[in-house]
Order: sequence, then C-alpha cells, then structure tokens
Amino acid sequence: MRNLFFEEAINQAKIALQEGGIPIGSVLVYKNKILGKGHNKRIQEGSVVLHGEMDAFENAGRQKANIYKESILYTTLSPCPMCTGTIILYGIPKVVIGENKTFLGEEDLLRFKGVEVVVLNDKECITMMKKFINEKPQLWNEDIGI
Amino acid sequence: MRNLFFEEAINQAKIALQEGGIPIGSVLVYKNKILGKGHNKRIQEGSVVLHGEMDAFENAGRQKANIYKESILYTTLSPCPMCTGTIILYGIPKVVIGENKTFLGEEDLLRFKGVEVVVLNDKECITMMKKFINEKPQLWNEDIGI
Repeated sequence: MRNLFFEEAINQAKIALQEGGIPIGSVLVYKNKILGKGHNKRIQEGSVVLHGEMDAFENAGRQKANIYKESILYTTLSPCPMCTGTIILYGIPKVVIGENKTFLGEEDLLRFKGVEVVVLNDKECITMMKKFINEKPQLWNEDIGI
Repeated sequence: MRNLFFEEAINQAKIALQEGGIPIGSVLVYKNKILGKGHNKRIQEGSVVLHGEMDAFENAGRQKANIYKESILYTTLSPCPMCTGTIILYGIPKVVIGENKTFLGEEDLLRFKGVEVVVLNDKECITMMKKFINEKPQLWNEDIGI
C-alpha cells in the first residue's frame, strides 16, 4: 500500500519525466524522515551511475552505518544489479518497490542477503514505465545495459 | 602482471590520496583505449556512490551496450557490492583487480555471473591500502558500509 514516502518516490519519477528523463524515482527514509530523494539522471546529466536509487543515496549524503541499517528505500521500479549492490553495500534492511512487471531486478539477491523486499505492483508505476519503454525503447535499453 | 592501464589505475589512486581521499583508482578500457578513468570521491565530493570504479564508469559517459561488452575494468582494489553490481549491469566481461588482501569484495558473484576475474595482488596496492586503513580506519569503514 502507498504511503507518503512512496508517493514522493512517484513524484520524483514524474519530475524525471518532466525533465525529459527516465521516470524512476526513489526515497531513502530513516525513522520516518526523508534522508534523500532522487531520480534517474541519465538524460539530464549524462550520468550512467545516477539511477533513481543511486541519486537518492547520493542526495542523502554521507551517513553513519547505523543510520543506513535502520533505513528504508522506496523506489518505483525493481532495482537493477547496480542499485541492488548499493543497497547491500550500505546494509539497507528493507526495500519497497513500486513494480517489477516491466523490469525484474535482482530481488532474489536482495532476499538472499537478508533484505526485506516488498513489491507493491502499483498501477501508476506500471503504466508510467510501460508508456516510457514503449515510446523510448532505446533509452530504456541503454539504462539497463542492453 | 602490470600493464599501462593498470599503472593508470594506480596513478588514479595516488591522485585520490593527494586530494586527501581514499586511494582507490580505476580505468575502463575498450580495445586498448581508455574510455574513462576515476578515483574514489567520498572525501573530495562527499559522494557515497563515486567509488573508483563508479567514477571511471561515470567519466566514460554514456556508452553503447556492445562497447561495455568488450571492455576491461582495471581497479586497484577488489570491487565492493555496489561496483560489482555496476560491472554486472553493464556486462563488463573482464575485471583486473590490484589486490584483495585488505578487502575481499564480491569476486565470487562476478565469477558466478560469468565475469573473468584476474587478481594481481600487487604489492604497491596492498601497501597503499594497508597504510590508509591503518591511518584512517573510520573513513575506510564508512566507505564499505561498516
């Protein structure tokens, strides 16, 4: 079910879309406060590392290990291998995922590493990604290394 | 054995050290040409995503999938989960690692995903990391999420 943090992740995805970018957004939350939020910056900044999740981590800035280990990551799309690795590196215990219908990331690896994975399969997230992938398949493929 | 690309990865690590940063450097190479080189930017830019490997990817810019799939990543230290995930995302087929004595990353996952992993255990890399970890253990722990 949606909460305010997940709504903000969707809002970030919409900002990306308005900027001409790839509509994926994420929010990193510690004890009901947003540490950082972000969205995919491939088009806007020519970045190959700033996926939505990575941008949220980056905007949260340098945090102590014990903060990460009590934080939740909200993200509109199933995390790719890079973002999965980052979640594992920083020991994020829980990830709430908007949908995994248009792209299934490394959710099994997250679970194997002990991360709690919640998949909402939110209709708005699915519709937004389907539309983008349909309109700009080459950009999407580039973002996931295909 | 060292080659010019690996020497440049070490050079990048030394630049990081001179900047007051964490001495890890990386170079992404396609058909004997450097696409991008970089070093850890945690201290210099307050970045939690720009490990040496990530900075090399970022500086290489947006590349086609077929370019990544024929590229080699040289890096002074065994790749953490984040950098491992990025190598997997972009389908890099071969990684040359300076050393895995001071930190053992996700080399098994790389091999499981079909990546060729070469570990040099270069003495200069080991000495450089040992010295840094000994002098600044807190910074080092922060970089690997401890």
